[in-house]
Amino acid sequence: MLTWVIYDIVKDKPRTQVAKTCQRAGIMRVQYSVFLGDLNANEIDELGLKIKALIDEETDRVYIFPMCKEDFSKVRLLGEAFDKKLVTNEIRELFV
Amino acid sequence: MLTWVIYDIVKDKPRTQVAKTCQRAGIMRVQYSVFLGDLNANEIDELGLKIKALIDEETDRVYIFPMCKEDFSKVRLLGEAFDKKLVTNEIRELFV
Repeated sequence: MLTWVIYDIVKDKPRTQVAKTCQRAGIMRVQYSVFLGDLNANEIDELGLKIKALIDEETDRVYIFPMCKEDFSKVRLLGEAFDKKLVTNEIRELFV
Repeated sequence: MLTWVIYDIVKDKPRTQVAKTCQRAGIMRVQYSVFLGDLNANEIDELGLKIKALIDEETDRVYIFPMCKEDFSKVRLLGEAFDKKLVTNEIRELFV
């Protein structure tokens, strides 16, 4: 499923580690603290566990949103929700 | 549909206005810059247009994610994704 990972992580080191973990999971950065990509249920579980181990659960926030195609088509992105410098054609095509 | 509104708005005034607009639309705050509630397609359109008129599209970011029940049940929230002080029983029950 197309899965969004949106985070707000206070400290630099775990923030960088979470970004690297998302990249390694094969999802793509679409904004400084937003990743998007296709993951199956197991991959989502695994990514959730890895992120959980990195963050400070008292201060940090991570939202993982898996979406079916129908819901994905209803997503609205306003303003600079996508950093045009970061987004690949592969991601852009999801919104055509 | 259960709809998440997640924003990152640079200036205080439009940030406050967006929060008020979400509240008036009938959705509830679950974190400083995250709202959640049940909206129909028209209400989502209307909320999107209102928010668009408030933000600076060059700097601000707003994500509106409508979710079917099945997708909603797959959402993962890590860390302080919900501010326990803000969240009502109504919202808590969605996750039981």
